[in-house]
Order: sequence, then structure tokens, then C-alpha cells
Amino acid sequence: MQAVILSIGTELVSGLALDTHSAEISRALVALGIEVVRHETLDDDAAAVAAALRRAGDQVDLVVATGGLGPTLDDCTRDGIARAMGVPLEQDAAALAHLEAWAKARGRTAGGSNLVQTMLPRGGRTLPNPIGTALGIEASVGRARVFAMPGVPAEMRRMLAEQVLPRLEAGQGGRVTRVRTVRTFGLGESLVGEKLADLMARGRRPRVGTAVHHGMIDIHIYATGAPGEVDALLAADAATVRARLGTIVFGEGDDRMEHAVASLAASRRTTIALAESCTGGEIASRLVNVPGISDWLLEGVVAYSNESKVRTLGVPADLIARHGAVSEQVVRAMAEGVRARSGAAVAVAVTGIAGPGGGSPERPVGTVWVALADARGTVAALEVFTGDRKLIRDRAANYALNMVRLRLLEAEG
Amino acid sequence: MQAVILSIGTELVSGLALDTHSAEISRALVALGIEVVRHETLDDDAAAVAAALRRAGDQVDLVVATGGLGPTLDDCTRDGIARAMGVPLEQDAAALAHLEAWAKARGRTAGGSNLVQTMLPRGGRTLPNPIGTALGIEASVGRARVFAMPGVPAEMRRMLAEQVLPRLEAGQGGRVTRVRTVRTFGLGESLVGEKLADLMARGRRPRVGTAVHHGMIDIHIYATGAPGEVDALLAADAATVRARLGTIVFGEGDDRMEHAVASLAASRRTTIALAESCTGGEIASRLVNVPGISDWLLEGVVAYSNESKVRTLGVPADLIARHGAVSEQVVRAMAEGVRARSGAAVAVAVTGIAGPGGGSPERPVGTVWVALADARGTVAALEVFTGDRKLIRDRAANYALNMVRLRLLEAEG
Repeated sequence: MQAVILSIGTELVSGLALDTHSAEISRALVALGIEVVRHETLDDDAAAVAAALRRAGDQVDLVVATGGLGPTLDDCTRDGIARAMGVPLEQDAAALAHLEAWAKARGRTAGGSNLVQTMLPRGGRTLPNPIGTALGIEASVGRARVFAMPGVPAEMRRMLAEQVLPRLEAGQGGRVTRVRTVRTFGLGESLVGEKLADLMARGRRPRVGTAVHHGMIDIHIYATGAPGEVDALLAADAATVRARLGTIVFGEGDDRMEHAVASLAASRRTTIALAESCTGGEIASRLVNVPGISDWLLEGVVAYSNESKVRTLGVPADLIARHGAVSEQVVRAMAEGVRARSGAAVAVAVTGIAGPGGGSPERPVGTVWVALADARGTVAALEVFTGDRKLIRDRAANYALNMVRLRLLEAEG
Repeated sequence: MQAVILSIGTELVSGLALDTHSAEISRALVALGIEVVRHETLDDDAAAVAAALRRAGDQVDLVVATGGLGPTLDDCTRDGIARAMGVPLEQDAAALAHLEAWAKARGRTAGGSNLVQTMLPRGGRTLPNPIGTALGIEASVGRARVFAMPGVPAEMRRMLAEQVLPRLEAGQGGRVTRVRTVRTFGLGESLVGEKLADLMARGRRPRVGTAVHHGMIDIHIYATGAPGEVDALLAADAATVRARLGTIVFGEGDDRMEHAVASLAASRRTTIALAESCTGGEIASRLVNVPGISDWLLEGVVAYSNESKVRTLGVPADLIARHGAVSEQVVRAMAEGVRARSGAAVAVAVTGIAGPGGGSPERPVGTVWVALADARGTVAALEVFTGDRKLIRDRAANYALNMVRLRLLEAEG
């Protein structure tokens, strides 16, 4: 089966917003063995949407579209589908009931511009949206089955997973293409490449490739075939990659460094506390994003001012005066301070210069001290990261989380 | 002038890599007054490239393409252009000279697969690439002028800026299209749309549209014309939008809620402290991302455990026992506690249930209490957000930052 993906929105076609939905939907379709032949990003214009649908309806069996289902005048996907089908828009009873229930739950009455969202091309069907007012649409244009979903990311994701993919899975009974991704931190891409050179040779199946982002190296393994065969091939290669790369592997797939730390904290029953200066809550925020962390993350202090370092973390004021807030002495005192205050088993502290100001020849922007304190004592490390403020904070957070991860791994051995 | 942008690559169409070039090129074209009507992302397939070029050549005056100009077998943009033009590929003397010079500078000889890069559709011209082997191509298909550039970001950017845009500027005679974006928080899209209905009417110039993300509504205003005229039109509409929407407007362009808060904190010389439970450092992290915040953000406490709420924020333990950690009483005590500890003028606290676990019929997942304490006293608000854990935290952070923003705005009045 071949598919075209449409994303609809003036902000996308004019470059003000980045279309990430098409790539996400592509991955989901490719995983079902569907070949995606084209993405099109279109203006909020019913004629353009209708033309793209007709073009796709002449060529492929499936169109998945996002955007343009909102309540405002510039939302024209409903109209575009109707034009491509050559049918009128009609009010749908189920859509009206959905909108009325939605409004009632919020103490309002359904009406005004929201009523546009109850209109459906004749012959189309609605797709439920449990978390928003915009229902999806299923319809047919030419030989293509068309699914249109709202552009709001959470609504799109849920509708894709719960409505669209199950309908498509039913029709795909054979070959699948799957990707397995092993994620690493702490070794450069060329060194990773050398360790995996034979796996990455051109023409080898499964295909193995690397991709870098934010200082992490991902190893992607791709295989096509019958589901069971594919899974076995991927499992074998993933095991080889893991064995060759050792502790630099922190996870697979969508795992992030914080997932590895949270999972180790839970399995080791180890409590954690954080003292963040330049990362400013980034480490805490990432850990808190992992469900179930509440049993293990006791406390984080964003000690952004020197007063906060002294008052809340108990860093001696003269240590800051003598060595500066970005120094080994201060980062050690921060880690020990938050560990003592919180009673956590492991405490990590970060202080650095994220820029754009604050650098000096001895301590350039990007200079970051990280310390880890636990029952065995305190260790500290100095790194100089490149990039803008956000990237430096991001890399410092990864570095600090990795330090916790490696310490928790050691604690096992 | 109307344009279509093509990005060519299997990794893009299959969703393994994100196409960011099209958005970047769109912004550059739109700034020249060129209307981008469509992006298409295509597989590395000469027939698909040729079909897309012919489609665009029937409809628009300009095609800008990226990718598929490398030396490997899967690079087929040269072939696709030749097919669309109905001409053969021929070796280009200038391209051969470029490749030979490139190889010589690296102590190699030009040959092998790289020779593919010296082939040019008959009637086409090369675009110089000072930093790579892949030359660009300028050609004509139908009524469209076609520019094809390499997909390597640095090479694409340089060729766009030095070769493509100057050639287009010459033909544009001073007309530009500019976008101004007014950002709002706190009112639903349909209500915003009703307040701006006359501005958003189809066919009106400037064109006004809305886009929603993360509970925020952006109002985009687009105008085309001579630069001075366009700026005046945009300024007038932005002023109208601001006047109609009042304090829900928190910024323009790339402004985020935290920029508005940081800027108000600086102009009011107001210090801030944070006590975060379910947001877990997200608010601190966002504020810290704004350079210069260090003078105003005194401290943040990620009081994720009840012990931390009691020990660090001074919340009475019996208050948690009686009312639960997610309650008006506790959120008020958290805000007052961090304000007392830090000495900040304004303190904000958040406690809630981000899910997926922890909900109950009385306090479902998404229940969030926010409190703000300052010299005038403490106010608290209850919200129930929808979405997954990350979205609930994100929305709670926006809500809390907005509460600070509105209080700082009031402090002026």
C-alpha cells in the first residue's frame, strides 16, 4: 500500500512553524509496511486541499492529513475534502452531540463558530476526539481512503494511535519494516563507527546507521520482512551493538537519559536530590517527566543566586568569594549541601556559565562543573560545552544525569 | 510570484529525519514577497522528482529543491530534472573542473562515483558550491524556474544566500511579504476568532489567521507590498489585535511566556521564587533560559516529596495529612514558604496530579493548584488540564507563569 501525507496550515507552508507531524505519521505508517511516497504541506486553502486530495486519490490508496479542522474561518480541510469528493458539507448529528457534551462539561453552550466543527462532507464518517472539539474525518477520494486529523499534537497523536492505525493494521497482513534504535552517550561518532564498522557495511542486512544529536549517538537498525523474522534480526543486532558498546548504551527507542536514571533509581531503591545553578531546573524537570519518579526524587533546589546557594544549600559564603560560584569547591559544597538537607542517597550539583554573558578567558561560556555526592564521597568533573545557552544547559543536564547513571550502575557491580 | 519547495530524500519521506530546509527556504522566499503555495517531500526516485517538477511547472513560477545531488546511487535529482525537461544528462565541463580542483586540493584524483556529480541536464546551468562537491542546478521546467541545491545544511544555506536569493531579488522589484505574530494565553480559539472575525474574513488584506499550540493562541498577520507599506499595515493590525485582546496578549514573534515574565520582572525590579511539585522544575528551567534572569529569579525549590514540602518549604505536615498534597491549603503554604525562605517579592507554587497514576474521582489526573504570594497576600486557583503528563506539566507551567505576568502587570496599574 502506498500513502501520501498532507499537512495543512499557512504557518507551515510559510515556514513559521515546522511540520513534525508528517515525519511522525510516516514512521507509524512505515512500521505497518505502508510505503509513504510523498508529504505535501499546503496552505489553508480549500481549493489547494481539494487539488492535493484529487492528485493523491489518482495515485495512492491512503491519505493521512493533519490540520485545518479548527473552528475559525481559516480552517478549510472539511471544505477541501467535500470539494475533492464533489459533495456538500452537512451537519453531522454525532458531531453536534460531541460538541454539545464538550460544551456542557465546561458549563457553556455549543454555538457560534464552533458549530463549523459539526459539519461533515456527505458520505464521510467522524473519528472520535476524546480530548478536543475537532473530530477527525474518514472519507474516500478517488481510490484513496482519507483520514483527516486535527493539527493539535496531543489530539493528532491520540487519534492516530486509537483510530487511524488500528483501521490500517487490519488491512496489512504481511511484511513489515521495523527500526530498532540503541542510544549512547559518552563516545564520539567516529569511535562508535569504528566499533560497528562491519555492521555498518553497505548492503548488509539489517542496515545499521548512526545519527548524532545533542552529543548523543543513536544507532539505528532497520529490517524488513515477516514480523517474527524482523524482530529476531533486530534483536540479534541490538545485542551485538550493546555488547560492543558497553556502558555508553543508556537505552533504546524513545528512551532518554532520565528514563535510564529513573529506572536505575527504582531498581536500586536509591533516592536522589539535585542542586542546579546553570541548568536551572532542567535536570529536575526531565526526571519529573518520568512517571513513578516521585518515590526516588526527593528534592531539587534551583540555586540560581549566590544567596540561595548559601542559605538553602549551606555553601560557605567565603568559598564563593574565594573561588567564584563556578568552581570545583562550590559545586562539591552544593552537592553535599543538598544531600544533607534532603537525606537523599545520591546528590548531583551543577554550576556553570551558560552564556551569552558571564564568560572570561579563564572561564569561557560553556564552562560547567558537575559534582556527585553519595555515601562513598564526592566526585567532581569539569566540562566545557559548546553551543548556545539552551544547548549548553541541555548538554550539562545530560552529562550530570549520565554521571548519576554510571554511579548507579557501579553500585550494582 | 508563487513557489513550490521540494525536499528529496528517503530518510525524509520515511520520517527518520525531519525536513527543516523547506521551512527555512519558505521564510527566505516569503521575505522576498514570494508566495509559497506548497512543500513536497519526495522519495529518492527520479520518476517522482520529475512528476513533482512537471506538476509545479504547470502551476507556479519558481521551484526550489534540496537533496539528491550527492555521489551515491540513490541521488537522483539530476536525473529527475532531466526527465521533467525531456533532455539527456551531459557531462558539464565546469562541473568536471570543479570536481578535479576539489579532489586535487585533497590530494586525490576525481573519479569513480563522484563523476556522477559532473552530469547536468542539457540546457541547465550549475550553481557554484565552494564548500562541497555537489554543484547546484538552475533549469526551467514548464513555466517554472528551478533551483536545485544539495541537502547538506551548510552547503544549502550558503548556496541559498549567495546564489539563489540574489537571482530572485533581482526579479522581485521591491515587493516583500512579512508576517507579524501576536501571541496570547487565556482565551479559547473560538472566542479569539469571534473578537477578530472582521480581520479574519476571507480575502481581507492583510490576511489574519490563528494557530493553537500548548493552549496558546497565536495570531499571524501577513501582508505583501512595498516594505514601508507592509510594515505600516502590520503595525496597524497588530495594534488592533492588541487593543481587542487586552491582557491575554503576552508577546509577539518568538516571545514565550517566560520572556514576558522575565521582562516584567526586570522592568518592575521584582524578585521571584518558585515552589514546584508537579511541574518539577519546568517553570524554573524556562525562566533560566532567558538571559539576564539571574538578577530576578532568586530560588526555585522542586519539592516533589512531602518531606521536601515540609522541611524546605515549611508546609505544616498536618496540612498535607488533612487536605492532601494537591490542595488549596498546601499550595498556599508552599508559595508562602518559598517566599519567606528566599525573601523574593513574588512567589508562585504549583502542586497537581500530572498522571498517568495518582488520579481519583474527586481529583482526576490533570488537577492542578497554583498559588501566588506577594506583599498583598496570597491567591490560589484550581485548573483541570487535559493531555498526557508532559502536556499537563507544560500547561500548568504556562498557567503559573501567566499568573505571575498578570500580577506584575497589575502592579503597574
